[in-house]
Amino acid sequence: MKAVVCVTLKPDVLDPQGRAIQRACATLGWDGVADVRQGKYFEIQLQTTDRAAAERMARELCEKLLANPVIEDWRIERIEG
Amino acid sequence: MKAVVCVTLKPDVLDPQGRAIQRACATLGWDGVADVRQGKYFEIQLQTTDRAAAERMARELCEKLLANPVIEDWRIERIEG
Repeated sequence: MKAVVCVTLKPDVLDPQGRAIQRACATLGWDGVADVRQGKYFEIQLQTTDRAAAERMARELCEKLLANPVIEDWRIERIEG
Repeated sequence: MKAVVCVTLKPDVLDPQGRAIQRACATLGWDGVADVRQGKYFEIQLQTTDRAAAERMARELCEKLLANPVIEDWRIERIEG
């Protein structure tokens, strides 16, 4: 099964990379871009056919490896068969 | 409106960062992780209340700024009101 996971900075944490993109947008003429936040995206191929096991494993990976819980939130976007 | 966008490497493009994560998983005892691909995730706050305009703008940003069309694919995950 494939787990799709997104890791984002917590709302209170400054995101200089996202800010730089927002400024680049303004400089390049896209005035309607109010804010940009950048995060990380993971597609994880898991050797299981059990959806519940895949979700459990994805959660464990997020908690222990992919996200820094001090400054980041994570979310399992979907589990694909 | 808010556009949520994911940018991923094309399937044929090597992803050393994802590979490193997959190896770290194996080293740390998660044997069931067959493959990891890492991408980028963007939350873009747009100064419009028109869903179609927001989607058009998000598409333009992806094509011209956020993704490198030579090696990357992009996808608008959702437009939130």
